[in-house]
Parts: sequence; structure tokens; C-alpha cells
Amino acid sequence: MTQGQPPEVLNIVALSRVFDLPELFAAANTPTVRVIGPDQVTDPSQIEVAISWAPEPDAFARYPNLRMVSSIAAGVDRILTCPSLPPHVAVTRIRDQAQADMMAGFAAWHVVWHHRRMGTYVANQPKRLWERSFQAPPPGQVRVGILGYGLMGQSCARAIAAMGFAVTAARQSQGGAHPPDGITVITGHEAIQTVAAQSDILINVLPLTDSTRDVLNAALFARMPQGAVLVQIGRGEHLVEADLLAALSAGHLGGASVDVFRTEPPPPDHPFWDHPAILITPHRASDTSRPEILRQIAENYAALKAGRQPPGAVSRAAGY
Amino acid sequence: MTQGQPPEVLNIVALSRVFDLPELFAAANTPTVRVIGPDQVTDPSQIEVAISWAPEPDAFARYPNLRMVSSIAAGVDRILTCPSLPPHVAVTRIRDQAQADMMAGFAAWHVVWHHRRMGTYVANQPKRLWERSFQAPPPGQVRVGILGYGLMGQSCARAIAAMGFAVTAARQSQGGAHPPDGITVITGHEAIQTVAAQSDILINVLPLTDSTRDVLNAALFARMPQGAVLVQIGRGEHLVEADLLAALSAGHLGGASVDVFRTEPPPPDHPFWDHPAILITPHRASDTSRPEILRQIAENYAALKAGRQPPGAVSRAAGY
Repeated sequence: MTQGQPPEVLNIVALSRVFDLPELFAAANTPTVRVIGPDQVTDPSQIEVAISWAPEPDAFARYPNLRMVSSIAAGVDRILTCPSLPPHVAVTRIRDQAQADMMAGFAAWHVVWHHRRMGTYVANQPKRLWERSFQAPPPGQVRVGILGYGLMGQSCARAIAAMGFAVTAARQSQGGAHPPDGITVITGHEAIQTVAAQSDILINVLPLTDSTRDVLNAALFARMPQGAVLVQIGRGEHLVEADLLAALSAGHLGGASVDVFRTEPPPPDHPFWDHPAILITPHRASDTSRPEILRQIAENYAALKAGRQPPGAVSRAAGY
Repeated sequence: MTQGQPPEVLNIVALSRVFDLPELFAAANTPTVRVIGPDQVTDPSQIEVAISWAPEPDAFARYPNLRMVSSIAAGVDRILTCPSLPPHVAVTRIRDQAQADMMAGFAAWHVVWHHRRMGTYVANQPKRLWERSFQAPPPGQVRVGILGYGLMGQSCARAIAAMGFAVTAARQSQGGAHPPDGITVITGHEAIQTVAAQSDILINVLPLTDSTRDVLNAALFARMPQGAVLVQIGRGEHLVEADLLAALSAGHLGGASVDVFRTEPPPPDHPFWDHPAILITPHRASDTSRPEILRQIAENYAALKAGRQPPGAVSRAAGY
């Protein structure tokens, strides 16, 4: 064997004010791809790739030759709104069918939790109570709406339709493939309101953009059917939390599952914690495995260096 | 308009020692189809159709002209084993896609309950605890086995495969349609053991027959992978309850969901009630709407009177 060049190492700088990304990715590093903290960077001009979630406002300023920044997940909103992000830097996100499947199973679980009132059985077991009087309507008579029809929304729709529910999804952009049997897709700028108005159970998986911030608000809840349920697994900033409380208190909405919050963790005095109609999960709807994240970053960066569009690139104009 | 004959009324006698069927079906009766109690039968020789669940041993003896007995659900085992059931009487069951969809959603919910450890989140909420350290494996790496691949099993398989899980089902009979993508079907008399041996989560939806009674026993649990989970939504008599407790206590199985019991309700001192690894639901996996049950009974009886095989007829030899 001839003595080759030492392998090129991709050092990815971690820029996050909420997660210790070098620690989280420590076990996922490979001989050629590794996540390092800013304090481990001796020459910032050598850094071409960053991994980020909720960067500090000046996070990007130190790296003059940065070419690409990847989110650790599907959401890129806090990267795109970071003031120090240079305009020429490519922003990429993770697109992962396994993650979308996780999201779909999680969404499906919350649909059944509300449809079948599974919480009553969980609560009855410690009381040794065998109470079986509730008869749920057949799933074909339950209208499930999905806000967002990208990879996440499509996966949720497919899983929930496969359980026999009547699924309608709202997609912001026109076009796309014809949806599978049992799924109706509504497009256009009224799509979100239209879907909400006909959903007994409404699932939010929208991306967070200027036009979707605060979209889950009193006006939308007012259009939803009496007794309807919200499953909030998008981003915390989609939901006006006080408006959800008011809609539940008024008896207009029947319940909610909330996985994401404007501030995480929600403080101990947050009113959702002990609300009898709200099920809280701690931002666990989906997860991409860390090795897969690093694989996708390396793949995106290789495309960029070769002059191609990275497969995970987002549109800065669209915001996702 | 000419004066027609008064409409023929189908009086269905209710034969059950556990349910008050005339009461349960009171709201579902129509002008031409009604469920009556034995005490409402003035001339037993006029009765041609019965509806039954767990009949008394001598339940059928009183009706010399009985032609058909329908279960209220998919299970017919306690009708077929009733000593007073005459050999010439047709036995029918309910086949209902809406009911199968209910079963599928219920099974999918229990799969996700165990896969994602949803119970920890439900338990953490009253403690205001935001604990997110558990990272579930991607669903494609979780093997879900389904015992039984009739209407119920097929519907469960489809729903669970649509969430990205790797699904294998055991079917007793050979043949049948090619399964959809993502679903493997194993047939033959070793199929149950083979599927169990390769299932991280095992769902039972078998019919109850002489060959499946007690099938969920110590020998089967021993073949399952370390840490595997059982979802028991078939019939109570499939499960040797003491064997499940032993497999959990030994740490070989990781958990279970149990919807059906040998005695229902299970007595207050039943050890499953306060077992930390067992989730109990009160026989609520699925339900057919009562009007749909009566519609299918009338349809089956019309076929029988016309000399055709009722679409819901079971094979007495097969037991389902």
C-alpha cells in the first residue's frame, strides 16, 4: 500500500445557546466528521461549516469563511432570523424519513389518545376501575386536519389515514404529488383556516415563518368545531398559549396535546401543567439519530463544494 | 298507493349470560329488526335468529326452528362450544372494516406507548417534570409482530407499517393476497412461534380456538427477544396470565398491554392492576356500532333465506 494523504477532517463548529452540541454529538463523531465547540477553534478562518440551534445573535460573526450552516432538525427559523448570519451562507436542515416516521407515530398516538379517551383508562388503572361505557365514533366519522404537508405532514397524514380517519391537510404551496387515497389536500392562503374549520382533531406541523407565527390563535380556534382537539407538535411560537386556555375554558375546544412551548421547559407555574384537558409531552415528537445528522451535513457540504444545490438546502425567502 | 302487507318483523332473540343485549340494542332497533329477550318470546317455534355472546349451556334448546346465530362481535368461540347449539344452525360473526380500523388504531397506540415510553410523560406531567433524555430507536429498527392476519390483523399491520415499523404477521392458513409493502406474512403451524421469536413488540389478534387457547404462555415468551413487549388484544383465554407475570418478573419481557382477561372484569386483587409494567384497558380495543351489527345480522339472514352462504358465516371446523 502507498502512503496516502491523511484523511481530510470536517470540523463543524457548534453554535447554540441552548444545547451543548459538542457533548450531545460526542459519540457520533467519526474520524473524518466531528462537532467542536467555538472554544476548540484555533483558526476561525478554517471553519466552513456550522451546526446550530438557537444561535447567539453574534454567533456567525467570528467565521469569515463559513459556507454552510445546518440545523440539528427540520426547523431553521432561529438560524434564518439570526442577525449575524451572512446572506451568502447556505442554510440546510435535516430531512429524514425515520424522523418523519417518529413524528407520524407520535401524532397518531395523540389522535387515538383523544379519540378513544385513553387517558381515562390510564387514570382508572390505579383505582382498579373497569369502566367501559364510552363508545368512540368510528374513525371514518372523525375528521383529522393536518396543518403542513411537507415530509412531516405527509408522513402523519399517511399514518393517520391508515387507521381509517378522514384526513385533510393544508399545504401552503400549490402543486406537489397527488395525495394517496383517504387524504385530501387543500392549498392556498386560506387553507389553514379551511382545514381548521372542518377538523375534529387538528395537528400542527407547520414550519415557523413570519406568516405562521401565532397562527394557532383565538380566531382559528373560533372556527374549529365545538369540542375539537388541538395536537401542537410544530413549534412553540405557533401557539398563542393564552388563547388555547381561553378556548378550553369556554368549552369550545375539548382538549389539547402540547409538545412544544414558547419557553422550554415551561416554568413550574405554567398553567398547562395541571390543566385537566391538556396533555404535555417534553418536545419529544421526533428525533433524528445523531450519526444521521452528521451524515446529512457531510452530504450537504460535499454537494456544496461540488457546486451543486445541497439536498437539504432551505429557501431563505420561504423560510423553510 | 295500494295497501301493502304489514312489513315482516325480524325478532332476534338475545342469548347471553353476561350482557343485557335487549337493553344494549334498544336504541338500535328498527321497525323491522329488533332484539328481544327470551322472556319476550311467546312462541319459541317462531324464532329463527339469535344474537349471542357467552350463551348459557342450554340457551339454544328452547328454539326448535333456529336457523342462524350471530355473535355481537368477531369472536364466536363461546357460541361454537355451547353444548345446546344444534349442528345445522349457521353461525355468523360481524366483519366490519370500521371495527377493524378501531382495532388498528388501538393496537398502534399501544405500540407507540411502549416504543416511545409515553407513560413516563403521562406520569411526569403532575410532577411538572420536563424529562426528555429517552431517545427511542427509529421505528424501522423496531420489529412488530402480529399474531393473526384476518381482517383485524391486516388492518393492524397496515396502520403500524404506515408509522414506519417493520411488521411481520403470522397467518394460520396458507394463501391470501400478497401483503402490502412493509409487511411480511409467515404461514404454517410454526408461524406463531417464528413471529414471536423476532418481535420487539408482539400483538395478539388471533381468534380463540382449541389450537390458540393458552398460546401466550411461558414457552412462547421464552422465545421472544429480551425486553420485548406483549400487546394482548385478542381473547382472554389466549393468555396464561401467571406466565406473563413470571416473564416480566424475570426481566425477560419488558412490558405488556392487556385489554382482555379470562375473567372480566378482573377481580380487585388481580396482580395486573398494580403491576408497573402492565397497562390495563377494559376490553375497549374495538367496537361495532349496534345499528351496524343489526344491519349485518339482517343481511346474513336474508342470504340464508335465499339459499346463499351468509357473508359473515364462520367455519365450525376452523373455529372462526
